[in-house]
Amino acid sequence: MAATAVTDEVAAVVEEYNRRRDIHAVLVQLPLPPQVDATRVLDLLDPAKDVDGFHPDNVGRLVQKRARFVPCTPAGIMELLARHEIPVAGRRAVVIGRSDIVGKPMALLLMHADATVTVCHSRTGDLPGVCREADILVAAMGRAGFVRAGHVKPGAVVIDVGMNRIADPHQARDMLVPERLAEFEKRGHALVGDVHAPSVRDVASALTPVPGGVGPLTIAMLLKNTVRAAAAAVTD
Amino acid sequence: MAATAVTDEVAAVVEEYNRRRDIHAVLVQLPLPPQVDATRVLDLLDPAKDVDGFHPDNVGRLVQKRARFVPCTPAGIMELLARHEIPVAGRRAVVIGRSDIVGKPMALLLMHADATVTVCHSRTGDLPGVCREADILVAAMGRAGFVRAGHVKPGAVVIDVGMNRIADPHQARDMLVPERLAEFEKRGHALVGDVHAPSVRDVASALTPVPGGVGPLTIAMLLKNTVRAAAAAVTD
Repeated sequence: MAATAVTDEVAAVVEEYNRRRDIHAVLVQLPLPPQVDATRVLDLLDPAKDVDGFHPDNVGRLVQKRARFVPCTPAGIMELLARHEIPVAGRRAVVIGRSDIVGKPMALLLMHADATVTVCHSRTGDLPGVCREADILVAAMGRAGFVRAGHVKPGAVVIDVGMNRIADPHQARDMLVPERLAEFEKRGHALVGDVHAPSVRDVASALTPVPGGVGPLTIAMLLKNTVRAAAAAVTD
Repeated sequence: MAATAVTDEVAAVVEEYNRRRDIHAVLVQLPLPPQVDATRVLDLLDPAKDVDGFHPDNVGRLVQKRARFVPCTPAGIMELLARHEIPVAGRRAVVIGRSDIVGKPMALLLMHADATVTVCHSRTGDLPGVCREADILVAAMGRAGFVRAGHVKPGAVVIDVGMNRIADPHQARDMLVPERLAEFEKRGHALVGDVHAPSVRDVASALTPVPGGVGPLTIAMLLKNTVRAAAAAVTD
């Protein structure tokens, strides 16, 4: 089947979900296979059901501080900071990574919460130096154990958004605590973050674990958005 | 007339302009009077005619690096940097101000051009210190002569987006060159930027003048967007 035809089929499904009144929330699980035009599919989704907050209309509203749905991972991180009573206003935050899904909305939310925000990426000159300016450091670039002690100002709060599958025993021995290393040796793989926890743990004042840190919050925020979508549909 | 009724009337005009095929571009001149709901009016405007790029759909597309119309002031600044062959990639840029019209889109465009971008604002702790990190400093907070030599790293490029009307003779004497001061004394007012040019001029490697710097580029970019809107309508 030609690529356009496949996308047409997926588009038809999305359009049916848009119409159905018993469906309040739709999540397009990315990545889509290459024969489907993901942008076309996402643009078709009714913004009022787009609980991921990826539709341009929802992205624009987030920028304008009138979000319908806040993207789940950054929303979860803001919740985590609030629950742990970590002050954000007036502090310096550095976000490593500029993806549409995490980096950009994260920077916006921190800025809206009155932090002074810097976004770093692969083209940043002195990455460790810029990271050391951060009171709150968010690592979201998808490189296992990349952030080390030298990236962290003593006492900083470090949020690890990474979810990297490693299979290299050397890397596993370097990054995993004994209990998780034993598990790695049984399974042959493990999930680790973008932060090298063994070295960062002693420098940071707080560090989110991987797994079990940002991940569950992302799911909680997705459910929150889903409930909100359903409530809005009922009151419509 | 009740506020809603006034907004309804303005909305009807916008909807007519949306429908008319002989109108390709619409600009809502802000600020609107308080009895008109500006957000409702802007949201009604056809994104394909929104040459300011303020509709949430256009803002979202800008974030996603597939802008239909880039907001005119930040677009003009990128053009200015390009024409003067000022490198952006890998350099540190600091934007003072986080407005939807200048600060936020400016930060995005610089980030998309591979700068490491920091956004400062009224809640930033050590504002002069953060500004001194900048290779490219964009002042867009609307305070006459606020940015002084102490905010500028020697050799930095300083872009002055401010357009402030001053009427205080003391401030005029402090900020204006003799020729413009004579004019001030005749008229009783003058336009000055957010940068205190007399002190910054000797520290920066380049500084845009006010007036005659960013302003004319904003208008040029508005015309560019208008031509683009018309061309897109013709090929539709």
